[in-house]
Amino acid sequence: MIRQEDLPLMVDLYELAMAQAYWAEGMTDTAVFSLFFRELPENRNFILACGQQHIAELIGQLRFTGDHIERLRQLNRFEPEFLDWLSGFRFSGSIRAVEEGTPLFPQEPILEVTAPIAEAQLLESLIMNYVHLESVLASKAVRLTFAADGSPVVDFGMRRMHGLDSAHRGVRAYRLAGLSGTSNVVAGLDFGLDVSGTMAHSFVQAYPDEMEAFKVYARLYPGTTLLVDTYDTRRAVRRIVDWLRQEPDVQIGGIRLDSGDLEQEARDCRKILDDAGFRDIKIMASGGLDEYRIAALRQAGAPIDGFGVGTAIGAANDAPAIELAYKLTEYAGEPKMKNSSGKTSWPGAKQVFRQFDGDGLARKDIIAGLNEQIDGSPLLATVVENGALLPGYPGSLDEQVARARDSVAALPPAFRELEPTEGFEVEFTEYLKHLQAETLKKVST
Amino acid sequence: MIRQEDLPLMVDLYELAMAQAYWAEGMTDTAVFSLFFRELPENRNFILACGQQHIAELIGQLRFTGDHIERLRQLNRFEPEFLDWLSGFRFSGSIRAVEEGTPLFPQEPILEVTAPIAEAQLLESLIMNYVHLESVLASKAVRLTFAADGSPVVDFGMRRMHGLDSAHRGVRAYRLAGLSGTSNVVAGLDFGLDVSGTMAHSFVQAYPDEMEAFKVYARLYPGTTLLVDTYDTRRAVRRIVDWLRQEPDVQIGGIRLDSGDLEQEARDCRKILDDAGFRDIKIMASGGLDEYRIAALRQAGAPIDGFGVGTAIGAANDAPAIELAYKLTEYAGEPKMKNSSGKTSWPGAKQVFRQFDGDGLARKDIIAGLNEQIDGSPLLATVVENGALLPGYPGSLDEQVARARDSVAALPPAFRELEPTEGFEVEFTEYLKHLQAETLKKVST
Repeated sequence: MIRQEDLPLMVDLYELAMAQAYWAEGMTDTAVFSLFFRELPENRNFILACGQQHIAELIGQLRFTGDHIERLRQLNRFEPEFLDWLSGFRFSGSIRAVEEGTPLFPQEPILEVTAPIAEAQLLESLIMNYVHLESVLASKAVRLTFAADGSPVVDFGMRRMHGLDSAHRGVRAYRLAGLSGTSNVVAGLDFGLDVSGTMAHSFVQAYPDEMEAFKVYARLYPGTTLLVDTYDTRRAVRRIVDWLRQEPDVQIGGIRLDSGDLEQEARDCRKILDDAGFRDIKIMASGGLDEYRIAALRQAGAPIDGFGVGTAIGAANDAPAIELAYKLTEYAGEPKMKNSSGKTSWPGAKQVFRQFDGDGLARKDIIAGLNEQIDGSPLLATVVENGALLPGYPGSLDEQVARARDSVAALPPAFRELEPTEGFEVEFTEYLKHLQAETLKKVST
Repeated sequence: MIRQEDLPLMVDLYELAMAQAYWAEGMTDTAVFSLFFRELPENRNFILACGQQHIAELIGQLRFTGDHIERLRQLNRFEPEFLDWLSGFRFSGSIRAVEEGTPLFPQEPILEVTAPIAEAQLLESLIMNYVHLESVLASKAVRLTFAADGSPVVDFGMRRMHGLDSAHRGVRAYRLAGLSGTSNVVAGLDFGLDVSGTMAHSFVQAYPDEMEAFKVYARLYPGTTLLVDTYDTRRAVRRIVDWLRQEPDVQIGGIRLDSGDLEQEARDCRKILDDAGFRDIKIMASGGLDEYRIAALRQAGAPIDGFGVGTAIGAANDAPAIELAYKLTEYAGEPKMKNSSGKTSWPGAKQVFRQFDGDGLARKDIIAGLNEQIDGSPLLATVVENGALLPGYPGSLDEQVARARDSVAALPPAFRELEPTEGFEVEFTEYLKHLQAETLKKVST
């Protein structure tokens, strides 16, 4: 596994090659790079931007050690003097970023890096990797909470998440997105999300009779949830009911269904439990669930009290990538842009102002030049200055989670539904339109 | 980021809960768990199984430290004596696994763990996470090599890969899948894949005129590849041609196209270069490429010499998850199976025999009981015994890459195409069919 101290080497070669070129040319002026996405994936009404904090915390600590320099030397592309420069590398710039868990739309900066150009360029892939992962996972997970509409959704995704870094940091993104719990022990502990879990089919199978497995668990874990679908779900629930009638001191908190027609199974199991007076025993469902299936189960009135979701959120299976871009927008005070086919960019350092109506619902975003004063709440704030985290940043994760919840709740209702919607107005200011037109003239000649 | 030493805590809570139950009940008999997938994703004709080696190497080293135990204590679910047991945990079992880069079909074990049940159960999520990631990425990447049909495919995916562990280990999977290079510095160095890279649009933009940027790069990196689509691709190439005519000593190895209609752009650029006598300057394409676009470009005869691929392989975007299952198949000498709706499993420890025809092409797989002798090459071999890596395992990555290439090349031709195909025969032996029928009778009563 890649070690924390080797993160400076998590770089694409061209970033080092460009840094050496800037160094060789004495190009040390300040650049502004903007991280944004060009368009939304098909099944997303917004992106829940997450991961900026991890980058802000990391960036001031990056150091190229002697070992790193030695490894880079093996590539035979770098001058000794440039490698000396790298060994003294300290990020000296600033970062402005939106809060963790901010819903964003295309072209809106998630963060902007202002730094000597070689420094800002070197960090491109690392910044993108961090923000991409957490934003991809949070943007999927928040949809599960929309579908569950208040019922708890628990992350079962570790086994499907792409590697261990994803399975760890992803759980923080899930918490920002509003999930209620996780099966993942270390991530739950690290990020303050309730850790829960029941039993696997293998546990039931290991005993000659599934009732023996249930009894062992009930004794060890009063209030536990029993997995009832290893062989025959209804038979298992009927046998549990018989057992609980005979042993009224046994405490069972719930049963879990993991296969079959979950709606029908839940109804049948609920009836068996209710008829026997066990109305407090909850029904948890898992097994191939995503936001659409959860919404369908809820719409059908399936008596399910909580959902465990693995594959769908673990790899954000319907939109596992976002077209994030990290683009130069200013260098040495000059606005910069790209005019590639279909990828024309907006020059200049920016701010986003979110405007709200009387009910507190977000109505419109205005993307403005950094120094423009516009009505609305500015979304980007300085988090790193002169290479150091701003005092007080990032605050507690609890506060961030609360603010993320409020930001999502302030979206117009259609944006908190699963169906694709459009029409959230995002406007560029006249200043930026003019700047783009003027910059385009310069690069077209 | 999760630290290597904290990997024992990368566990789903239910695994610890089950382990405690086995411990509490004195259930220490040997279990066999099998890792396999139930069905292929829609756009895959096989899964290229990778990652088993990392698990084999890791598993003997897992130790629960005092710090881990202290953290687990905070969950208030574990007996002090069980935590003592955990602190003495050493994997004592064995693992049989297929070679890195083996093409597999549904129900075929990727690996089997034979160990005291609590040990094998504890490792479930870690094993699945490792093998899932690498198999997902390799199974996508190998398709790119089919499409490119001999032309180099280079990984540009770090920024889209899910976290840093994925961006690191994934590159090894890409190498097993047959990619030619990577932009990822540390992963390329660690896994012996050629590290390459050119320049970003930001580099071109940083200069008042793109020709200045090109000249800086050509001076620093003779034979470099120039990114020509920042503003106007054809204009850029015409200006490069004029410059090279004036300065014949300058060495340019290639140009890269990253946007627009790549087929037309490549034709036009090739013509400009050829007309000026620069037939040796290669054309590299990138920008939203996947196997289908590469195949279409090749079919159209687009004069493209190499492909850089990011998003499509970075997140395996059309099939970012595989339905891997880790199932108990034997405990204390008794065959075990699950009979959940749609998820009936096959009991017993297994071997897979691959049979070849006279041309050396794989013809049929036979899934057999572990002790059956069947014609064909057995795919699973012991890699860990008594908790320790078998001497000589895993051998060099170079050898593994060569064997993976041969295994893929031995698939029938239709399985090395992009279009979905079926009909690779995978048969269970009579012994296993009988075992399943007998086991089913037991669990149904």
